[in-house]
Amino acid sequence: MSTKVAIIMGSKSDLNVMQDAADVLAELGVEYEITVVSAHRTPDRMFSYARAAADRGIKVIIAGAGGAAHLPGMVASLTHLPVIGVPVKSSNSIDGWDSILSILQMPNGIPVATVALNAAKNAGILAAQILSTADDYLVKNLIDFKETLKKKVEESAREMEGE
Amino acid sequence: MSTKVAIIMGSKSDLNVMQDAADVLAELGVEYEITVVSAHRTPDRMFSYARAAADRGIKVIIAGAGGAAHLPGMVASLTHLPVIGVPVKSSNSIDGWDSILSILQMPNGIPVATVALNAAKNAGILAAQILSTADDYLVKNLIDFKETLKKKVEESAREMEGE
Amino acid sequence: MSTKVAIIMGSKSDLNVMQDAADVLAELGVEYEITVVSAHRTPDRMFSYARAAADRGIKVIIAGAGGAAHLPGMVASLTHLPVIGVPVKSSNSIDGWDSILSILQMPNGIPVATVALNAAKNAGILAAQILSTADDYLVKNLIDFKETLKKKVEESAREMEGE
Amino acid sequence: MSTKVAIIMGSKSDLNVMQDAADVLAELGVEYEITVVSAHRTPDRMFSYARAAADRGIKVIIAGAGGAAHLPGMVASLTHLPVIGVPVKSSNSIDGWDSILSILQMPNGIPVATVALNAAKNAGILAAQILSTADDYLVKNLIDFKETLKKKVEESAREMEGE
Amino acid sequence: MSTKVAIIMGSKSDLNVMQDAADVLAELGVEYEITVVSAHRTPDRMFSYARAAADRGIKVIIAGAGGAAHLPGMVASLTHLPVIGVPVKSSNSIDGWDSILSILQMPNGIPVATVALNAAKNAGILAAQILSTADDYLVKNLIDFKETLKKKVEESAREMEGE
Amino acid sequence: MSTKVAIIMGSKSDLNVMQDAADVLAELGVEYEITVVSAHRTPDRMFSYARAAADRGIKVIIAGAGGAAHLPGMVASLTHLPVIGVPVKSSNSIDGWDSILSILQMPNGIPVATVALNAAKNAGILAAQILSTADDYLVKNLIDFKETLKKKVEESAREMEGE
Amino acid sequence: MSTKVAIIMGSKSDLNVMQDAADVLAELGVEYEITVVSAHRTPDRMFSYARAAADRGIKVIIAGAGGAAHLPGMVASLTHLPVIGVPVKSSNSIDGWDSILSILQMPNGIPVATVALNAAKNAGILAAQILSTADDYLVKNLIDFKETLKKKVEESAREMEGE
Amino acid sequence: MSTKVAIIMGSKSDLNVMQDAADVLAELGVEYEITVVSAHRTPDRMFSYARAAADRGIKVIIAGAGGAAHLPGMVASLTHLPVIGVPVKSSNSIDGWDSILSILQMPNGIPVATVALNAAKNAGILAAQILSTADDYLVKNLIDFKETLKKKVEESAREMEGE
Repeated sequence: MSTKVAIIMGSKSDLNVMQDAADVLAELGVEYEITVVSAHRTPDRMFSYARAAADRGIKVIIAGAGGAAHLPGMVASLTHLPVIGVPVKSSNSIDGWDSILSILQMPNGIPVATVALNAAKNAGILAAQILSTADDYLVKNLIDFKETLKKKVEESAREMEGE
Repeated sequence: MSTKVAIIMGSKSDLNVMQDAADVLAELGVEYEITVVSAHRTPDRMFSYARAAADRGIKVIIAGAGGAAHLPGMVASLTHLPVIGVPVKSSNSIDGWDSILSILQMPNGIPVATVALNAAKNAGILAAQILSTADDYLVKNLIDFKETLKKKVEESAREMEGE
Repeated sequence: MSTKVAIIMGSKSDLNVMQDAADVLAELGVEYEITVVSAHRTPDRMFSYARAAADRGIKVIIAGAGGAAHLPGMVASLTHLPVIGVPVKSSNSIDGWDSILSILQMPNGIPVATVALNAAKNAGILAAQILSTADDYLVKNLIDFKETLKKKVEESAREMEGE
Repeated sequence: MSTKVAIIMGSKSDLNVMQDAADVLAELGVEYEITVVSAHRTPDRMFSYARAAADRGIKVIIAGAGGAAHLPGMVASLTHLPVIGVPVKSSNSIDGWDSILSILQMPNGIPVATVALNAAKNAGILAAQILSTADDYLVKNLIDFKETLKKKVEESAREMEGE
Repeated sequence: MSTKVAIIMGSKSDLNVMQDAADVLAELGVEYEITVVSAHRTPDRMFSYARAAADRGIKVIIAGAGGAAHLPGMVASLTHLPVIGVPVKSSNSIDGWDSILSILQMPNGIPVATVALNAAKNAGILAAQILSTADDYLVKNLIDFKETLKKKVEESAREMEGE
Repeated sequence: MSTKVAIIMGSKSDLNVMQDAADVLAELGVEYEITVVSAHRTPDRMFSYARAAADRGIKVIIAGAGGAAHLPGMVASLTHLPVIGVPVKSSNSIDGWDSILSILQMPNGIPVATVALNAAKNAGILAAQILSTADDYLVKNLIDFKETLKKKVEESAREMEGE
Repeated sequence: MSTKVAIIMGSKSDLNVMQDAADVLAELGVEYEITVVSAHRTPDRMFSYARAAADRGIKVIIAGAGGAAHLPGMVASLTHLPVIGVPVKSSNSIDGWDSILSILQMPNGIPVATVALNAAKNAGILAAQILSTADDYLVKNLIDFKETLKKKVEESAREMEGE
Repeated sequence: MSTKVAIIMGSKSDLNVMQDAADVLAELGVEYEITVVSAHRTPDRMFSYARAAADRGIKVIIAGAGGAAHLPGMVASLTHLPVIGVPVKSSNSIDGWDSILSILQMPNGIPVATVALNAAKNAGILAAQILSTADDYLVKNLIDFKETLKKKVEESAREMEGE
């Protein structure tokens, strides 16, 4: 199985959020690579990374960044691959509003699939859902994953009702 | 070619926004179906629609809604398919903030791929990008689409520089 | 006396907020049931719970949820009972704005009686007020409750003036 | 049938919003009275109106106001009846945020059942739902009302699918 | 010298903020009284307190409250005295926005002189400024107060420049 | 009778808002002067105007400005007189938030009595209230003014009830 | 005299805002060039434009963009020249908040000198101020410019006082 | 080498933020002076400081302030030098929004080059960029600085990829 999902982030400090994407992809049986690519401090690296991704077999890119978060949108401008953006509530962020708006509000023509603030786990699941459109094995894993979520809630319900 | 993208919206009045998704999918050569499904006024219809979508061959669902916009998130809870949410700035919306936050801020486990306010066009492109992960014909169309965007800007640049 | 108020919440972690609803209902002499029902992780459970509530004798449903909080609105779409929504400032919430807006901004036709952020106590009082429209015993309890609030303030006033 | 719902508003200019509450109550078969009561310009009138409401047989009060909207909360402080607050986006309002927050964010002990910005129609429906907890005729009307909402959406769906 | 300034607050818990008003009034040589008056829990007390204030010789009322803060505006509706409002960032407040907007955004006809979030000290200074319009002794004290503020900054400047 | 209230504004274009302050002062029998003083374009004029105001017999300054509105706060820093700030929603304002926050959020030591967005009328009334603390004639006018407000609401109420 | 200021914008539709920068530069005697460079639609053009600017003799870049506005920040990442960002309230912007935050909130290391929403005129003046640090002719023009602003206000004041 | 950059701040308590500007200027080889100048508590000092700065050889002023932050804008009104504003999230600030808006939203004619919340480091870099428009030595330092930023990211990337 080849690596189909790339997880990138604007700063090493985003890893404590972005690790959730990696973990859930592993849980769902999806190979990934993970690294730091800064739009503002390594623009050349961002260019070459985004431009080369499709040819290396990457199918989905997950990009997390905080503050004036340009990484997801710029990567989306440089590739035809679907890009998932994770707004990170970093220390230089205003309650996360800057991260959210600078990832979400992309102009027509260049979408970024934005997930909730700090929701790297959902970014991972969404990447798996995207790959599952052509992979029945992943469909099964996603259905099992939903089933597990359901069972945990039902267990909580039984506990609370039993109190 | 079978229909792989479903475009649904919470109200008939969202069509003037959501039509953009349909138009760009047509432009990119992707078959779609389009209808009204209200989370709040037709919950049963939403359930059956979302539950049946995968079996009917749908691969991606685009859901647009305004105000307390529950349609994208609820559909995502009912299917393993990737769901793209379009926050619509409807008349009962507070500058679009309610639509954005009630679509974007999904809990861990149930992602919605959110695009910008009223950005149904980007929802359509994102759906094509998702399908393109297993469809080289769509890859080509998306690359052409990006090329067209670029050319229009270059033309604007020439005009402005020539002034 | 039968159980007339149902307290539900999207996640077990909401209990530290939602317990206040239970406590004030007990104080006011109203029977309640309390459990976990997740709109996004257990949509079937939510459907059957909301659809069956009226027939089981439930008169008012209190629903608390955080982030993209769809539980109160979806329950309101599935029953004719009055639904009280409690926006919970959960860990995946943006200062509570997402919870508030996704509960409050329901479209015309499907109201949710929204209370303040984390104000589960007020949700409980409101449920008692609703039941009191046909229950003079509850009217008396509510009047006593208001009297107690007043006395506490008067006591604070005497203390502060005496300083 | 006696008048059970009182609709009050802070200013004559709120009537174009608040009329929706009256209309839907009429549609649902609920008697109402409607008048102007200003918290800030007629505080004595507000006091006597709110204090006397229960004894006159009123069961639910709907109060609409804009800007620093104190009417719903003050009326709630003066009666044990359930009070429904309608934030009105009046001309002296900041995009409605002031109206919403000054109605919604009531302290513990004094709930106001807040509906969406300008959603007087939902206030009327909620009042009917509250009364329906002891009135089977109203239950039937509410169920019919929901059925009508559903049918309109289904009709829209058929139209759009037929296009 | 008679008491000319009344400091009131919606809850005992606001005292840690409101004490600053008392302290600066003492520093400026203005007599004050201080107590708890809750708009929502003791509306009758608020009415009689506000209505009687002018006759007792009170010239300015400082009112602090948090959340849906109705105390300053309601007191202003009940007296012709100038009312200074202090938005308190209490525990049931959304980052202070609710307190600010529900005090500041009063309708035309009923002003509240609003100061910054938690700025009870400024409320005290403003009360002294108001009284100073007819009291030369207070003018002198206010000029001295400004001089002291200036000297502290100049001292900080000398320290920092000397580093 | 000498002029006791100065109305100043940052730009000629603020006059359509600020005229309300002049009109209500005239109605209440208070002499005023009115002019343009720009903090940013005529800082020297602002300095000399604010510094000289008290000696010219001015007792209260009303200052209106929009955007990054520094006029009210800077005038307050230059005089011991009470300064009333009117946030103006000018064309270069972000929905009025910038005007409000840059007038309201003054640091401890230098209060500005802030009124609602565009509420120049309330600024005029507040100025009269301040002067009335030492002027029984103004007290009477303010009480009459409140009476007129009340009567207008009562008339509206009669009309609406008569419908 | 060579061209020292480059004015770029993300879209031809930003020209109605950005023209103000050009006009004020002309008024101040500064040569400029103006063109369209889209971060998202022409990333290569942006790269080469930003990378080449310094060598072509450009000293300051003014970049305007709306929505998720990445152009100013990305250009700043690609050059050591000072970059001035103009948040444009374009049609796909949420009241301008997205444009402001995605330009202003740059991470440490890569500043963008941000001006007010739509304030392209101020961007032009700021560019002239930057160049004036090594150009006494521009200093004189800027001082004259300030003098003109002052005179216009003084004229407005005379008019208003004369009324 | 003479001092070309002045760093000023509204309060001694802003130093923990503003020191970053001093440190990065030192790192880039730019002489600076640093002191406290309060717009509201020492307006005369602010006037004389801002008016004299250019004649003393200062080329750029960095001004930091919190809350209703008038220092950067007022200094900009008093000098033709470029002024860089640093919004400080001080204790009397509402999540920084007040600081940002009262610095950023300057009226046309008087720009302030605003950087991100608390981003004094970027203010220092921007000051160096401005000076570098006429100083090749600084150009070299800025290029080296950018190179260092890049290398740190590349190192982080190697570490993360090696994990």
